[in-house]
Amino acid sequence: MQTTKTHIVHGGTLRYLKHDSDTTGTPMTLSVFVPPGEGPFPVLIWLSGLTCTEDNFTTKAGAYRAAAEHGLIIVAPDTSPRGEGVADDPAYDLGQGAGFYVDATQEPWAPHFRMESYVTGELIRLIDDHFPTTGVRSISGHSMGGHGALTLALNHPDLFRSVSAFAPIVSPSVAPWGEKAFTAYLGDDRAVWDRHDAAKLIAAGAAKGVYDDILIDQGDADSFLADQLKPELLQAAADAVGQKVTLRMQPGYDHSYFFMASFIADHVAFHARRLKG
Amino acid sequence: MQTTKTHIVHGGTLRYLKHDSDTTGTPMTLSVFVPPGEGPFPVLIWLSGLTCTEDNFTTKAGAYRAAAEHGLIIVAPDTSPRGEGVADDPAYDLGQGAGFYVDATQEPWAPHFRMESYVTGELIRLIDDHFPTTGVRSISGHSMGGHGALTLALNHPDLFRSVSAFAPIVSPSVAPWGEKAFTAYLGDDRAVWDRHDAAKLIAAGAAKGVYDDILIDQGDADSFLADQLKPELLQAAADAVGQKVTLRMQPGYDHSYFFMASFIADHVAFHARRLKG
Repeated sequence: MQTTKTHIVHGGTLRYLKHDSDTTGTPMTLSVFVPPGEGPFPVLIWLSGLTCTEDNFTTKAGAYRAAAEHGLIIVAPDTSPRGEGVADDPAYDLGQGAGFYVDATQEPWAPHFRMESYVTGELIRLIDDHFPTTGVRSISGHSMGGHGALTLALNHPDLFRSVSAFAPIVSPSVAPWGEKAFTAYLGDDRAVWDRHDAAKLIAAGAAKGVYDDILIDQGDADSFLADQLKPELLQAAADAVGQKVTLRMQPGYDHSYFFMASFIADHVAFHARRLKG
Repeated sequence: MQTTKTHIVHGGTLRYLKHDSDTTGTPMTLSVFVPPGEGPFPVLIWLSGLTCTEDNFTTKAGAYRAAAEHGLIIVAPDTSPRGEGVADDPAYDLGQGAGFYVDATQEPWAPHFRMESYVTGELIRLIDDHFPTTGVRSISGHSMGGHGALTLALNHPDLFRSVSAFAPIVSPSVAPWGEKAFTAYLGDDRAVWDRHDAAKLIAAGAAKGVYDDILIDQGDADSFLADQLKPELLQAAADAVGQKVTLRMQPGYDHSYFFMASFIADHVAFHARRLKG
């Protein structure tokens, strides 16, 4: 792993990193914040939304004050493989910047778009190998990254202590963004999609006995709320199986990083309690 | 004033605004955060550094949590006039994005580059006219904007209750950035420059009896520290006249917004004490 930039922030050390990924077959970029102190520290993985790189969360979320206070490492990977040899699409919601945290099975995406395997395998190993971690971690994210956090946590319960999300796409199978991306990456068979749909996973009981609570913040002035995000579907699925979900509808807040900056400290504290308990 | 974007953040309302400025003869952009509650509220004006627009501070400084807590309006204007009819230079440190908070007397800059008059006149009036202010205000800024905050506060003591800065250019007369900009905007007569040099103003007693303290944070790993910023010149000038300056050398911190985000809450609190006292 090559460090491309280092900054001190809130007493901790923030690094921008680049490495050649065996999983995606491309260079991958990420940021890693290590809090002040001796460690070892538990880890919070943050997955960003459409169009983002590792930089959006890192510069705009204001997460490191709380991470320094609670003693958490925060890892923010890029949202897809990128580069000249990597398939892409002119639309902002497909291809580079829109990996959707699945392993693509369809051409031309299959060779490089393997974000589920990247995050749950290579990324976690790299972080545990190169940073002073306790070996336990949680996961959170925004929008497409909220979908990623929920589905990776539900499909890999051995890897994560807790999961939360901001404005997640809770049921991509019935959201235009998700239908487009899943058709492209996973093909037309919608049965294959179910494993990547948080509402369906929770309805099937994937969170029961694993996650005591799932924290979700959603702005009620978010322009994507009704068509793309639909948190009520997750709440209904959770209620049906007796899974606790704390869904906070935040009045007036939109889909921007200003929304996340306003509540990120609550999420860091939510994970810190479970990572250090 | 036209509102171009509105976001709720930390319970307050953040607006991006645009207006036709009589002072610069161009459209000018800014952001204004109004904290939650009834008001009226005192105002903190933030002046940004080279290359910045109003957006850098707004998205990266993480200032609004503290502003909401202390009940401060924060105003962040752009750093210069811009547009097709406005003079510019290919270099990042002259022309558009590099107004240096002076009123240019030299061509081709004089007609539009009038940032001292803009900030201390039209901007303050607009804010007091359109927002629920108490009519009192303080000023802070970063780098070129730290120079701006210090010199505007020292030249207009009737307008400001307090002043602070992050990594300011404390003596542009002896810094390459300042020498280049002042030569272009103000001409070759260095006597004219003295009024825009914070260290010289303080040496002349401009802060005495006006500002009980001036808070300055400076990263000791700032790559511009030795050549451009030179906070020791301000400290020496202050010591010589018995002016209190709290210069905090922050170990490991650089010139980035990660540095400002780490200490902005201290500056908001510093100003809040003086604005509400």
